[in-house]
Amino acid sequence: MAQPPVAVILMNMGGPDSIEAVEPFLFNLFNDHDLIPLPLGFLWQRRFAKMVSRSRAKTVRDYYGLIGGRSPIGDITAEQAALLEKRLNAAGGRAYRCHVAMRYTPPFTDDAVARARADGAGTIVGLSLYPHYTTATTGSSLWELRRALAGKSPGAGAVDLVEVDRWPGQPTYLDALAQQVVRGLEQFPEEARAGVELLFSAHGLPETFLQKGDPYVRDLETTIAGVLKRLGGQHPWRLSFQSRAGKARWLEPSTDEVLRLLARTGRVNVLAIPISFVSDHIETLYEIDLLFGDEARALGLNFKRAPSLNTEPLFIEALAQLVEEKLGATATGAIVGG
Amino acid sequence: MAQPPVAVILMNMGGPDSIEAVEPFLFNLFNDHDLIPLPLGFLWQRRFAKMVSRSRAKTVRDYYGLIGGRSPIGDITAEQAALLEKRLNAAGGRAYRCHVAMRYTPPFTDDAVARARADGAGTIVGLSLYPHYTTATTGSSLWELRRALAGKSPGAGAVDLVEVDRWPGQPTYLDALAQQVVRGLEQFPEEARAGVELLFSAHGLPETFLQKGDPYVRDLETTIAGVLKRLGGQHPWRLSFQSRAGKARWLEPSTDEVLRLLARTGRVNVLAIPISFVSDHIETLYEIDLLFGDEARALGLNFKRAPSLNTEPLFIEALAQLVEEKLGATATGAIVGG
Repeated sequence: MAQPPVAVILMNMGGPDSIEAVEPFLFNLFNDHDLIPLPLGFLWQRRFAKMVSRSRAKTVRDYYGLIGGRSPIGDITAEQAALLEKRLNAAGGRAYRCHVAMRYTPPFTDDAVARARADGAGTIVGLSLYPHYTTATTGSSLWELRRALAGKSPGAGAVDLVEVDRWPGQPTYLDALAQQVVRGLEQFPEEARAGVELLFSAHGLPETFLQKGDPYVRDLETTIAGVLKRLGGQHPWRLSFQSRAGKARWLEPSTDEVLRLLARTGRVNVLAIPISFVSDHIETLYEIDLLFGDEARALGLNFKRAPSLNTEPLFIEALAQLVEEKLGATATGAIVGG
Repeated sequence: MAQPPVAVILMNMGGPDSIEAVEPFLFNLFNDHDLIPLPLGFLWQRRFAKMVSRSRAKTVRDYYGLIGGRSPIGDITAEQAALLEKRLNAAGGRAYRCHVAMRYTPPFTDDAVARARADGAGTIVGLSLYPHYTTATTGSSLWELRRALAGKSPGAGAVDLVEVDRWPGQPTYLDALAQQVVRGLEQFPEEARAGVELLFSAHGLPETFLQKGDPYVRDLETTIAGVLKRLGGQHPWRLSFQSRAGKARWLEPSTDEVLRLLARTGRVNVLAIPISFVSDHIETLYEIDLLFGDEARALGLNFKRAPSLNTEPLFIEALAQLVEEKLGATATGAIVGG
């Protein structure tokens, strides 16, 4: 009898696939207690989410309007899942099925788990698409996955849950990211490339997450170290944080603050490298390309962005290796199941 | 009749010239309402200063013990004054006399003003030895100078007060600082120099000073831009802040935090450049050389420091130009007084 397939669930935040989907997306986001840990019960969190999503919706709809009326993250993640499934099965070991679980827009985690159960999966790999761990992203997605597995259908049969929760130093991921940086650098004249300021722009976080022990910043630094090593030479670089919202104290410095610093100190060539998300979405297409891009040009900077990883073959290979390494059983699986 | 001489008063913070002088130095420092603006009357500030200077004295005496039992800032500033006087008078215009006014150790501002009056000075130039303005340093010194002039001897005759309060972009100062950076870089193998991380380490400040409008950080950035331009190339660099004390929120990032960041991200060669003080003192000789030096070596960094400006001829020339430019009358003075 063939071994039951492994279900790989690619977890990401999601994004609205239409202008109408913006408000429900925001509601789910503000209703996530792991992301926004209000010290209140779930009913109050819902009321808060209702209120804030309604009041923010107009502005956010405008942002999505500027990038074509929808987030590409859904399509890109679906494509990543299809390519990963193909790559994992091509290795000729166990059978794999890949599904997507988004945190704030469909397909949700319950749907992904239902599909995995329908496949008869004996093992579910929860694969975070956030390389750097924080409870605000990977933590929230994994809790949701554990709830979905423990919850609704207790009689549905036991499955093993394997979690891939952080991979800041995975060598093939670093190869892929370094390759995108090189492509970013190719937008500058050859003689200027060695001196281009590499601005690794990560999604910001309230500092409270770090105080509670998130390894997020150290994970980012691990990734940066790996990329710099691959690039060779001694590129000037900085780490900054984008997308601040609310009044809490967030990680510093902010990306726009660093742009002003670089301009004031006579720098010209700056390459922004989106580092905490692996797919294009509002934070790359609107915030970096349009908002920071305009600001940087106004400051006299020659500002470019490295392309996101999206469906790069090397990145898909990295995801496959993460799954295979975590299962620790590719070779064995090939014998048993082949 | 010869024109009355110009008195130039070089203003700096001072430092203990013996182990016994540590506690009175600390008392004067904590008793400075401009530096530590307690929302209390002067009697309470005195009590606070008495208490804190007593409790901190033992530790601080140990630090001074490690750098030879005294701060060199008094000797260096006296030498700067002597060299500046020589240089200003050599220009053959008006007659100049230079005096030192320290904020926390003798010679104090009252002494400097008494000497200027004894010279029969018609003009006093208050020359801040802090290139970058904050009320905590230059502001405090200038207020003390204004008090000394307005205070004790109202019948002593009017003098003009000319203030040189900030000079972050003075070209000769930038030349001198860039020269010291080049000397710092010469401590590294020639092929490594272009990639050495330039760590401009400035004295930290509570953020409240900036909120009240101090141009301190922008002044620092002006200086860094000028130095980078003179160095040419595209050196990687960072600005960090040292010497944090107390529980208020200070400027970030701290110098030791940046050292850890650089080590974690695989950097090796780091040159610390003391940027907010122009003379050697406890913050260069103990804090950078010993404290950060040991920490950096433990982190595996190849850590060096650029020499301070001290009595570099190019720096003395910069001070002379600052005085001459402010008086705006070198040529005229030469005609009238010569």
